[in-house]
Amino acid sequence: MTSQGSGPTSDVVVQKYGGSSLATPAQIRQVADRVSALARSGRQVVVVVSAQGNTTDDLLSRASDINPSPAGHELDQLLATGETASASLMAMAIQHTGTPATALSGARSGILATGPHGAGIIVAIDTEELRGLLDAGRTVVVAGFQGVTAEGDIITLGRGGSDTTAVAFAAELHTGHCEIYSDVPGVFTADPRVVPGARLMPDIAIDVMTEMAFAGARVMHSRAVELAALYDVDILVGSSTSTETGTRIHRRDGNDMLEDRTAVMAVVHDTEVARITLRTQNAPDPSPAVFQFLAKESIPADMTTVSSAPGGGYSLGLTVHHSHAADIRRSFSDLTSTGRGRGEIEVEDQVAKVSIVGHGLLSRPEYASRLLASLTGAGIDARSLNASQLRVSVTVPSAEAVRAVGLLHSEFGLDAEAGAMAGSLSPRP
Amino acid sequence: MTSQGSGPTSDVVVQKYGGSSLATPAQIRQVADRVSALARSGRQVVVVVSAQGNTTDDLLSRASDINPSPAGHELDQLLATGETASASLMAMAIQHTGTPATALSGARSGILATGPHGAGIIVAIDTEELRGLLDAGRTVVVAGFQGVTAEGDIITLGRGGSDTTAVAFAAELHTGHCEIYSDVPGVFTADPRVVPGARLMPDIAIDVMTEMAFAGARVMHSRAVELAALYDVDILVGSSTSTETGTRIHRRDGNDMLEDRTAVMAVVHDTEVARITLRTQNAPDPSPAVFQFLAKESIPADMTTVSSAPGGGYSLGLTVHHSHAADIRRSFSDLTSTGRGRGEIEVEDQVAKVSIVGHGLLSRPEYASRLLASLTGAGIDARSLNASQLRVSVTVPSAEAVRAVGLLHSEFGLDAEAGAMAGSLSPRP
Repeated sequence: MTSQGSGPTSDVVVQKYGGSSLATPAQIRQVADRVSALARSGRQVVVVVSAQGNTTDDLLSRASDINPSPAGHELDQLLATGETASASLMAMAIQHTGTPATALSGARSGILATGPHGAGIIVAIDTEELRGLLDAGRTVVVAGFQGVTAEGDIITLGRGGSDTTAVAFAAELHTGHCEIYSDVPGVFTADPRVVPGARLMPDIAIDVMTEMAFAGARVMHSRAVELAALYDVDILVGSSTSTETGTRIHRRDGNDMLEDRTAVMAVVHDTEVARITLRTQNAPDPSPAVFQFLAKESIPADMTTVSSAPGGGYSLGLTVHHSHAADIRRSFSDLTSTGRGRGEIEVEDQVAKVSIVGHGLLSRPEYASRLLASLTGAGIDARSLNASQLRVSVTVPSAEAVRAVGLLHSEFGLDAEAGAMAGSLSPRP
Repeated sequence: MTSQGSGPTSDVVVQKYGGSSLATPAQIRQVADRVSALARSGRQVVVVVSAQGNTTDDLLSRASDINPSPAGHELDQLLATGETASASLMAMAIQHTGTPATALSGARSGILATGPHGAGIIVAIDTEELRGLLDAGRTVVVAGFQGVTAEGDIITLGRGGSDTTAVAFAAELHTGHCEIYSDVPGVFTADPRVVPGARLMPDIAIDVMTEMAFAGARVMHSRAVELAALYDVDILVGSSTSTETGTRIHRRDGNDMLEDRTAVMAVVHDTEVARITLRTQNAPDPSPAVFQFLAKESIPADMTTVSSAPGGGYSLGLTVHHSHAADIRRSFSDLTSTGRGRGEIEVEDQVAKVSIVGHGLLSRPEYASRLLASLTGAGIDARSLNASQLRVSVTVPSAEAVRAVGLLHSEFGLDAEAGAMAGSLSPRP
């Protein structure tokens, strides 16, 4: 696929701006100025926008005022208006700077999606119209977070959907690169609101970023990072208001592997989780049915543990976003009440997930051990430990989450005083 | 075209609800209850909704904060989100009552439109999907005010667009009938906020209603009334919160003609107008160019006067909605500055249009004469008189509009004391 217009394909830049960067007219104008300057420098620019400020939450609350469990078709159509309005306003702002621009809603942008409403998956992107607009010298503003089904229905892409939209365009346009701008300057070794000594990471390998995102780092959504890894798209995460460099999320190469092999790189926490435990007696292993349900509903689950209980039953635990807890409780009740056996479900929502992220964390068992010792030594009840080479996670009581993050950030030498301020990916030698 | 589903075509009811009837969750639930009761009674229901409350004005103001003259493509895409959100919420509310419902945005409802952005014209309606939903037992909620072009662009239908959407569906579905609900109980002999003695008209002929709407009666837009006349659709105008009958706008028959032949039936005023006067010297008649411009931009003009001035020039006057005044001034400047002649444009925006509406108003010249005598006798400067069989209009200073309406309402015997309270279309014997 080659561009026939004003520049080669590699001149296309895909930028995504988050809702907090677009909350006011002044912020929209500021972003429009940035975009316009880039377009005037000769680049073809695709801008993906989220809904302004708290629009999505406002729409959700208006929907639940009307109907506590609205149908997905209507809810998606409602929510998609947020990004469509945002894209229209952004294109107007760019036009006002004198740069030709066109806004495309999800239905027009060529994003073909499928899957359940509220958790759509991008199937394909038809970039023909978009390329035509770019080659005609126009900047294209795309409403993020949404696609259209083969039947013409709007479907939203779930949490982090606008990031996914941006990465998908970068992949389909073969730019090799995507820029994600929000109100934070980049990726930190821990949430800087929680750990004052947290440091900005100038660079991070994409597989580590995937784990960070999945562990709850808000700066980018894990689906988008995974897509970037799959399609070899580098990501720059930066602030929409600053000229600082931000964090480059890059594909791994041999050099990275060597340097980062055994290092804790960040501490991530997520308070928006619920821990679900399902215990059965005299019934078959519930795991197949549970995972079938999670797959059908596109509910990501983390920290899964399955064990057979002494009396012959099973115990299945998993951590999910707390918004899914009610659905899961309802569905699991069906699982345990049908069949001959008995079962019980426990939903803990006063928990937080705390994780250390890095490379080779299982290669040296000290990491899990030091994590547990550090937390339990401080009187924090750490449970459900789950470890991989890239991440070790535990749940702690919500009220202890901030203290746990601070302890681990120090324990693994990530505080600003302990390492170099910039450039160091491996603060512990 | 015959329905193959749960009922014959004539069982379809098209109802439109205005934005002031949908401003709060409680109002949306109230409308949903009405619609649901109708559906449970066995009718197939198509509900057309406007944007909630002041949403459209809010969106317009957000756009003009960003760009004082936004491109039509982006502005239409922005504005259409208002009705799409409204339709989604209404469908959720109907679903919550237990009645199956589906929301369709303008892009999905089958409304093919063309024309300039912001003033689109419905070209065709493909009701196949809608009929399929109705026949499957679902109530269908359509986002009013919008259609989609052959290229897939959203285009809005201009002022009163949701009324037009509803009448167009009633015409296409051959219902012969359409219900328009808002926060007013029907059509009055004058604006009841201005004339306390104004009476609700239980019945009005559609050609008189066309004139009333064009003269500025807010209860329905003239385009929708004209479409209803063209396709033999009766309209019921009523309140969304009341069980009162409202006003029936009906096709004329011989009986009506006789009864109403010479009667003033209502006084209508419109303060949202501007009077434009274009005067040229040593130049050809500007009318062809002016009307070509108005047609191209879909700007309705009223009270048009063209006269040749004593010195060989022309004077062209017309009344338009004040929102068009700036565009017209700019365009007419081009008309007068090109060519060899000279010209000047006067735009008066501190004027209001006041009209009497009825039948046979030119058959008895007393109507225009009494109108002028009544106003000038009270010291009101009435200008630009324009008369037809159905309407006599003048412009007066804005500040005098309310007084002028009251004077004419009395002069033509429309006050409640002067006629029967209901049922009388001809208060003056």
